[in-house]
Amino acid sequence: MDMNYDLTLLTDFYQLTMMQGYFKNNKADQIVVFDLFFRSNPHEGSFSVAAGLQQIIEYINSLCFSSEDIDYLKSLNVFSPDFIDYLKNFRFEGDIYSVEEGTIIFPNEPILKVIAPIFQAQLIETALLNIFNHQSLIATKASRVKWAAGSDAVLEFGLRRAQGPDAGVLGARAAVIGGCDATSNVLAGKKFKIPVKGTHAHSWVMSFDSEIESFRKYAELYPDACLLLVDTYDTLRSGVPNAIKVFQELKEKGINSKSYGIRLDSGDLSYLSKTARKMLDEAGFKDAIISASSDLDEYLIRDLKLQGSQITLWGVGTHLITSKGCPSFGGVYKLAAIKSGDEYISKIKISENPDKVTNPGNKKIYRIYGKESGKIIADLIALEHEVYAESSPIVLFDPQNTWKKKKLEPGTFTLRSLLIPIFINGKCVYKSPETFDIKANCEKELSTLWDESRRLVNPQTVIINLSKELYDLKHQMLE
Amino acid sequence: MDMNYDLTLLTDFYQLTMMQGYFKNNKADQIVVFDLFFRSNPHEGSFSVAAGLQQIIEYINSLCFSSEDIDYLKSLNVFSPDFIDYLKNFRFEGDIYSVEEGTIIFPNEPILKVIAPIFQAQLIETALLNIFNHQSLIATKASRVKWAAGSDAVLEFGLRRAQGPDAGVLGARAAVIGGCDATSNVLAGKKFKIPVKGTHAHSWVMSFDSEIESFRKYAELYPDACLLLVDTYDTLRSGVPNAIKVFQELKEKGINSKSYGIRLDSGDLSYLSKTARKMLDEAGFKDAIISASSDLDEYLIRDLKLQGSQITLWGVGTHLITSKGCPSFGGVYKLAAIKSGDEYISKIKISENPDKVTNPGNKKIYRIYGKESGKIIADLIALEHEVYAESSPIVLFDPQNTWKKKKLEPGTFTLRSLLIPIFINGKCVYKSPETFDIKANCEKELSTLWDESRRLVNPQTVIINLSKELYDLKHQMLE
Repeated sequence: MDMNYDLTLLTDFYQLTMMQGYFKNNKADQIVVFDLFFRSNPHEGSFSVAAGLQQIIEYINSLCFSSEDIDYLKSLNVFSPDFIDYLKNFRFEGDIYSVEEGTIIFPNEPILKVIAPIFQAQLIETALLNIFNHQSLIATKASRVKWAAGSDAVLEFGLRRAQGPDAGVLGARAAVIGGCDATSNVLAGKKFKIPVKGTHAHSWVMSFDSEIESFRKYAELYPDACLLLVDTYDTLRSGVPNAIKVFQELKEKGINSKSYGIRLDSGDLSYLSKTARKMLDEAGFKDAIISASSDLDEYLIRDLKLQGSQITLWGVGTHLITSKGCPSFGGVYKLAAIKSGDEYISKIKISENPDKVTNPGNKKIYRIYGKESGKIIADLIALEHEVYAESSPIVLFDPQNTWKKKKLEPGTFTLRSLLIPIFINGKCVYKSPETFDIKANCEKELSTLWDESRRLVNPQTVIINLSKELYDLKHQMLE
Repeated sequence: MDMNYDLTLLTDFYQLTMMQGYFKNNKADQIVVFDLFFRSNPHEGSFSVAAGLQQIIEYINSLCFSSEDIDYLKSLNVFSPDFIDYLKNFRFEGDIYSVEEGTIIFPNEPILKVIAPIFQAQLIETALLNIFNHQSLIATKASRVKWAAGSDAVLEFGLRRAQGPDAGVLGARAAVIGGCDATSNVLAGKKFKIPVKGTHAHSWVMSFDSEIESFRKYAELYPDACLLLVDTYDTLRSGVPNAIKVFQELKEKGINSKSYGIRLDSGDLSYLSKTARKMLDEAGFKDAIISASSDLDEYLIRDLKLQGSQITLWGVGTHLITSKGCPSFGGVYKLAAIKSGDEYISKIKISENPDKVTNPGNKKIYRIYGKESGKIIADLIALEHEVYAESSPIVLFDPQNTWKKKKLEPGTFTLRSLLIPIFINGKCVYKSPETFDIKANCEKELSTLWDESRRLVNPQTVIINLSKELYDLKHQMLE
């Protein structure tokens, strides 16, 4: 989880057997282009959110086979001494281009591109995918949850149900990038400068002789962040009345709490929140917060809001941190070109399933925005040497239905090249922003999507176009 | 992931605010009993497999607030100097009892029990749940996948789709405990002495001028573990014929490969494997292995086998490592009793949902086996002071339907107490077995389930009984 420790062996065994194969066939230094891309968005959405680059950078920077790693590899009796010796001096010397974290990404685009000796490009495949897939998955889910919650705050509460410590800590980071405002996870808070939040558990209430006593003691200690969990015994008959009593006592003592209220953690959140709101309002606590945390996800939050629930603070745990419904992000890493002299020879992977045919060549992505709206019109995947400019018209066509054409006139659009250099000749040339700056970037990115594309169910897809040259290359290779 | 580094802050913020509350109210040393249990099995199965204890032990042993942790907590402006000072000397001094890893577990039983000062018991809740929930989830899924595969070998291939590095490495460990025979994950192989397996990727094939050349080079280097990936271009028209050609060449050179064959990674695995089997057999390669890896899970493997597929080696990735369909394990940690003098005062958490009412008191679990069959008859949750023996009859009754009674006569059953001491007074008194010994234990455990309970869909549930005394205590407290 701490990317500073040795993750060099965080790879698939076949990467090492292939690396020995390249080495033995004098192909280790062959420069290649690998694309990292994915084929479909999680949760049948229209977009995804890129995340994980900071940990990818840390991973690449610390790549090195320790003597312990070397001893282990020797013990497998698969690798020859000369290959093992070669590994001892391994370091990454290639180039990596990537979209920045928080960027909105779409299927079949090269989100990250590695140009490196095949020996090096192969080793890093698995860890790059692991890190990128995990964090992009959670950031994407968080963007959906936050969308459903509207202007309400969303807290990430999932550590206890996360798939291991990393999934909790890096997942909290990704959740904040995608839209969460804080986390309950203290380690994530420390590592990534994320605000940490939380109140108390049922055990706090049960450890006192009575619920009211436990509330009193809590309020005494934390008058300014006093969210009381009201469902240990009976929410409406015991929990909320006791909370109101304690809020009255605070008031009588002249304490004006900055932030106080209740947390619901079971039962019907719509009914309970509306009834509790009424009880709190009638007692004069109109600014008491009603928060909730109970198997929430974007669909339930949307429905609760539609039903007029009075919750304005959402603690989202299990379903966010595991991306329930779609717990994996399908990023893949495919060979796109091999360098020969100064040229790139394009490579393509054919499949019976047309969706699985890759886009060949050394490529880049342009994002095209409407000049007036600021919204995304389309993305355009082009070959690296192609140049598009805002001063010339662009003809877009849908690669699945080439008769669907659209001409963009200069002055109506702006262009942005999405892939930026991260490593050049093995040296990191990029500094990751702080988590909250990435989060701010992601918010800005999300605002470039049309509402129609943000809808949770059956959203409008954004068309990813191929340049004419790339389209022709692909079809020529397929023939 | 490496449990030796600092995970002390791997906790929810509310644990720390509650701890300060206990400290300020002079309750920090109050001895309590917390139960770790879960309410339902993943995938609507009838059982789960416990895993993660080794990492829980490492976590507990390394608990300590570093000066960096302390500085961070100070910076939050929530904790008082005396509390912070108290944290500096924190160490776990309580008792932990647990089932061993690989044990079959059922809902609502205390799988792990912490008896410790509430101050300490509270801090560790989140990490214990995180570790236990994750590994038990994956071990349970793996036991299902292995069951579907019958006597075929199953390889864990999921690292690239796991939810972060830990999820990959600890997930591979759990997958092996539950039934997998090897992993592709080199780091997991090194850390947990698991055999690592794998062959080559599409990129290997694409990096050569032709598929046959890539196969030849691979076979040259790895004649004794020569599984060729045949779907880069066209499985039946190119991949399998080229593989056969290379196997023939090996034979002509007098090389008798120990293990060789093909890997299918796309297309219809039933049709392709049957056709490939025929082609291989006709060419005289009856012992060539057909392996497959393509979005496999227990249901697809079962269906492929029912359709007569000729696959005998299964590489299972995404669906196993993320437990797709049910990506979280619902372990919870609830206060069961508070020590007062020499006695335990039982505590219960009430809920509108009867399934969520906890079992009060300091408890233990007996597992009852049929003497002849060796199969599990039932589990019995009793209070710690109760003693059951094989020499006396036991009357079991279903706690949901108390009229459903069953009397077991001496000589017809054997008894086993499931919870064993792991920590006593903060000292670890248990040594975790090696991963493959845990795996062997799990296999033995699985053999104590009736086939009816192992069915993937709608299996027979195993009844968990409460002792009469515990049942009476619970109902008395509920009244």
